[in-house]
Amino acid sequence: MRILVALGGNALLRRGEPMTAEAQRANVRVAAAALAAIQPGNELVITHGNGPQVGLLALQGSAYKPDELYPLDVLGAETEGMIGYMIEQELGNLLPFEVPFATVLTMVEVDPADPAFKDPSKFIGPIYPAGEVARLRAAHGWVLKQDGDKWRRVVASPAPKRIFELRPIRWLLERGTVVIAAGGGGIPTVYDPGRRLRGIEAVVDKDFCSELLARELHADLFIMATDAAAVFADWGTPQARAMRRAGPAAIAAYGFPAGSMGPKVEAACRFATATGKRAVIGALADLPALLRGEAGTTITAAVSGIAWAEGAG
Amino acid sequence: MRILVALGGNALLRRGEPMTAEAQRANVRVAAAALAAIQPGNELVITHGNGPQVGLLALQGSAYKPDELYPLDVLGAETEGMIGYMIEQELGNLLPFEVPFATVLTMVEVDPADPAFKDPSKFIGPIYPAGEVARLRAAHGWVLKQDGDKWRRVVASPAPKRIFELRPIRWLLERGTVVIAAGGGGIPTVYDPGRRLRGIEAVVDKDFCSELLARELHADLFIMATDAAAVFADWGTPQARAMRRAGPAAIAAYGFPAGSMGPKVEAACRFATATGKRAVIGALADLPALLRGEAGTTITAAVSGIAWAEGAG
Repeated sequence: MRILVALGGNALLRRGEPMTAEAQRANVRVAAAALAAIQPGNELVITHGNGPQVGLLALQGSAYKPDELYPLDVLGAETEGMIGYMIEQELGNLLPFEVPFATVLTMVEVDPADPAFKDPSKFIGPIYPAGEVARLRAAHGWVLKQDGDKWRRVVASPAPKRIFELRPIRWLLERGTVVIAAGGGGIPTVYDPGRRLRGIEAVVDKDFCSELLARELHADLFIMATDAAAVFADWGTPQARAMRRAGPAAIAAYGFPAGSMGPKVEAACRFATATGKRAVIGALADLPALLRGEAGTTITAAVSGIAWAEGAG
Repeated sequence: MRILVALGGNALLRRGEPMTAEAQRANVRVAAAALAAIQPGNELVITHGNGPQVGLLALQGSAYKPDELYPLDVLGAETEGMIGYMIEQELGNLLPFEVPFATVLTMVEVDPADPAFKDPSKFIGPIYPAGEVARLRAAHGWVLKQDGDKWRRVVASPAPKRIFELRPIRWLLERGTVVIAAGGGGIPTVYDPGRRLRGIEAVVDKDFCSELLARELHADLFIMATDAAAVFADWGTPQARAMRRAGPAAIAAYGFPAGSMGPKVEAACRFATATGKRAVIGALADLPALLRGEAGTTITAAVSGIAWAEGAG
């Protein structure tokens, strides 16, 4: 079975943890143990978030020389290297030596006319005091928005249109290679009017990018591994209930938070509808059970309503 | 023909240039134009240096939080992402859309008992005043040596033993993919006593790593593209003469600087002797002529002495 597992950003660096290489590696080791359990007998492609890491690198650049920040495409490429390396090494330590691995840098085309560029919404990088906002806007042309009592930079989160390295990724999977790709939603690029590809200041949603990759690779199963045990209705209320299986139309009728479960449910619905295959959202630690459909929430066009989990979900 | 082109560090960021993303990209564009001229009809794998970039990232980390520096394996992985991305994008802009590309993160095994660990010799990262040396030694366990009137960190430069991603790189080349790999000599790793692979504070010589990759890929031609037009005897004297073709034993009888031409000549001799194929050292701008053996210095076991270039070389 060809499986794409998307590792949520929190699977790699938990909120409030120090952003050291060692803290990241400790989390990668936990993810690797879960991934190792499902690799045998399957073709496995792994994607991952990079939010905290891009924030870290942006902060480092800022400390180094405030007016020469590296652009987001370059920072994205750096984090694909850093995180891909850690996943490849730690997962490699748990699987037989013979299993081939490749971390493939991934560029993603977005549309420069995507409406997301008119309404940047994705917070990135460090927080700034209100007094800094005017200077940062002038110096970098940034858009800054309020996040609590501080300010942060926001960038567009356009839809992914094309994954350039699709064929190499597919060829490697066909040879049994564990492939790590499309980290952080891929490196955001656009064609300029002269048909020259270049990077752009944006962050492609990693769930939508993972879905596009899963769909174009004809994956049999698309798993989004996160820190939630399942998709819940009425989350945060006494009526909270976990969904075990859901049809795309039925689950889409519920509302989910834009910053977390919303894009995951939307990506899962898109995959299930377009392919007729299963998408699963659930906890990283439950990966083998997610694969079997015995934990998390399975979204599939094969059911029309919602089947609720027994007990607490 | 299967060709490995190793881009020297100076091909990507020239000494004294500001270490901005734009300066790097401008140099990558020049390299891409040269590479684009030799890609059609050939299988092409590209390696590159990362010295200035690792120095930059180390400096950024240091500015961010002096006592939480990222280790060299992680910084190496970041630079493979950053530089690989720029090469892939700029070369992609010059070749037909149908040509597939993949930048493959590359881990290299070294021997923890390599004598290089007893005598670290590779300068890395920023310069420090003499007054900082004792503190840095105590805080990080670093070895620092004098470089002019300042001090710099030195690390071991052990020999590369194994390239882990060799099979994926080969599979991609067989499908006509332009592969970018083994940047900066590869990410340095060792097996610990429990046979767990981990990163190590070292920098693998990029010429030796490129040679190992070229040899194991059964490359027909190994080109080291640098800023010198050829290998010269008596360089820096009025008797300086450029070599056009040289046998491994004949060229090895000359002495070359350890930090620049020395390892290139040694890597070329090793490749030519082990494979019977050609290794070429010359200027990036001459890449098509290097391929034809009409510029630079060709090292081949097919000749025994040295044939000198006409005129100034």
